[in-house]
Amino acid sequence: MKKIEALIRTSKFDEIHQCLSNLGVKFLTFYEVKGMGLQHARMQTYRGVAYEPTFIPRTKLEIVVANDLEEDVIQCILKEGRTGEVGDGKIFVYEVGKAFRIRNDDTGEAAL
Amino acid sequence: MKKIEALIRTSKFDEIHQCLSNLGVKFLTFYEVKGMGLQHARMQTYRGVAYEPTFIPRTKLEIVVANDLEEDVIQCILKEGRTGEVGDGKIFVYEVGKAFRIRNDDTGEAAL
Amino acid sequence: MKKIEALIRTSKFDEIHQCLSNLGVKFLTFYEVKGMGLQHARMQTYRGVAYEPTFIPRTKLEIVVANDLEEDVIQCILKEGRTGEVGDGKIFVYEVGKAFRIRNDDTGEAAL
Ligand SMILES: Nc1ncnc2c1ncn2[C@@H]1O[C@H](COP(=O)(O)OP(=O)(O)OP(=O)(O)O)[C@@H](O)[C@H]1O
Ligand SMILES: Nc1ncnc2c1ncn2[C@@H]1O[C@H](COP(=O)(O)OP(=O)(O)OP(=O)(O)O)[C@@H](O)[C@H]1O
Ligand SMILES: Nc1ncnc2c1ncn2[C@@H]1O[C@H](COP(=O)(O)OP(=O)(O)OP(=O)(O)O)[C@@H](O)[C@H]1O
Ligand SMILES: [Mg+2]
Ligand SMILES: [Mg+2]
Ligand SMILES: [Mg+2]
Repeated sequence: MKKIEALIRTSKFDEIHQCLSNLGVKFLTFYEVKGMGLQHARMQTYRGVAYEPTFIPRTKLEIVVANDLEEDVIQCILKEGRTGEVGDGKIFVYEVGKAFRIRNDDTGEAAL
Repeated sequence: MKKIEALIRTSKFDEIHQCLSNLGVKFLTFYEVKGMGLQHARMQTYRGVAYEPTFIPRTKLEIVVANDLEEDVIQCILKEGRTGEVGDGKIFVYEVGKAFRIRNDDTGEAAL
Repeated sequence: MKKIEALIRTSKFDEIHQCLSNLGVKFLTFYEVKGMGLQHARMQTYRGVAYEPTFIPRTKLEIVVANDLEEDVIQCILKEGRTGEVGDGKIFVYEVGKAFRIRNDDTGEAAL
């Protein structure tokens, strides 16, 4: 099992979500986070006025899937999340050791 | 060391928390997330009126523990988090490579 | 690639951030979470009045870096995040399997 974590443009949520839904992915978890590019992290000056670096609001998606869905989920996010402008975000993939459904005794892929 | 991540009903937080406390687990981190079942993701119709799919608020717990506590922590969440109704949530387990306590030079299990 | 996750004092964010910026780390993601020490989890009494345990607000940082930056990132957080008082927080390190930049076809360390 894999956890696919994506930092996406909030405006792309609906299209990614629709694509995942078509794949047969059953669930996703998401929440708002803030991102910051560290090259821009120091106090900036604009027309002589110092201003604070701004934080970029992002939506983070977390989807745990069986290995055979990993590739398709990544393709959905790459395809539907892309505008081609800087700032489209990232995808990171992690190994998941165990999974459980709290309602019953399902474990592993049966719990997803 | 393992990270135990659980998506639980917010209403079950206190009972799970009490169970973990009795185990000798020292800390947990939690925050609010949104979940969405993707079967229900498309626009729905109710009495002829289209409406947006709704997002389900959830509490996400993150607990990093030594391997010998893993099983008991999972049992607390399964036992105290279960209502038997759909929507009780999930538990996912990940491997943790390193841990540090920022206050001093503790690392590994001593830092938990 | 490694994911470095840190629960820090919100008041230490700027100093850690500056240190990471000097290292050449390009990005970080952060969000607010709540922490709870479970020893203090039960109802407490103060001057005879029962009160609820309080939740501690924390900032969680997530930084995905190439292996050769891992050590320096950890040192920044340990050095700049430390006050020496209890409650300075924790650092946890995870293995990252894959990374993708959504804007183009960069993968792996090139995507960070
Ligand atoms: N290595 C990383 N670790 C943690 N978060 C990251 C990392 N890289 C990017 N992010 C998160 O993703 C968000 C979007 O990053 P962004 O798409 O601008 O990346 P980029 O490398 O600058 O690519 P681009 O050149 O396409 O802009 C950031 O604001 C941050 O929240
Ligand atoms: N595979 C998954 N990846 C990411 N988040 C998930 C996954 N499965 C469930 N979740 C999260 O857990 C929440 C609760 O899921 P839920 O308990 O309804 O799962 P379920 O598989 O439908 O089980 P049940 O049949 O008991 O309802 C979801 O709203 C979502 O936030
Ligand atoms: N094992 C853990 N799993 C998940 N979250 C943790 C864990 N340990 C600490 N945290 C998070 O980090 C926050 C800060 O913890 P804190 O620094 O007080 O740890 P501590 O072990 O009590 O160290 P100290 O003795 O320096 O206070 C907690 O409120 C919690 O959010
Ligand atoms: Mg960018
Ligand atoms: Mg359900
Ligand atoms: Mg403490």
